[in-house]
Amino acid sequence: MLRATIIVRYKEGVDDPEGKAIKHSLELLNFKGIDKVNVAKYYEIFLDMPLEEGEKEVQEMIKKLLVNPVIHDYELRVEEI
Amino acid sequence: MLRATIIVRYKEGVDDPEGKAIKHSLELLNFKGIDKVNVAKYYEIFLDMPLEEGEKEVQEMIKKLLVNPVIHDYELRVEEI
Repeated sequence: MLRATIIVRYKEGVDDPEGKAIKHSLELLNFKGIDKVNVAKYYEIFLDMPLEEGEKEVQEMIKKLLVNPVIHDYELRVEEI
Repeated sequence: MLRATIIVRYKEGVDDPEGKAIKHSLELLNFKGIDKVNVAKYYEIFLDMPLEEGEKEVQEMIKKLLVNPVIHDYELRVEEI
């Protein structure tokens, strides 16, 4: 079994509306000293296949569904579990 | 400056509708061998304060806004950057 972990963030300079909303909510709750909040998606995909094939499959999933390269950066890790 | 990283997931046994939707979409795109997809939130909060104070503040943020202990588990890391 493989576990692929993919973190998908907004690129530097792209507006992160959810991060801004969380920062605003925290400030309304009287939290101080917050410089910035980023919100990213964290996907875990469990796959029944060999490691080499899984790495290729997940690259395709990223390209076809999970990441929009215009606005997103991503980190990927695939491991056997 | 501190960076707090918080990963908020659904507890085991709690329905993850977004994970199911992603799995379904990947299958519609003809990807095979997918056992399960989990989707979590990944927060990065940047704070101007000392480490010890920051750790306490982030614990409060988790309690008051970011995590619902009935349905969520979380991982927290706070580090100086």
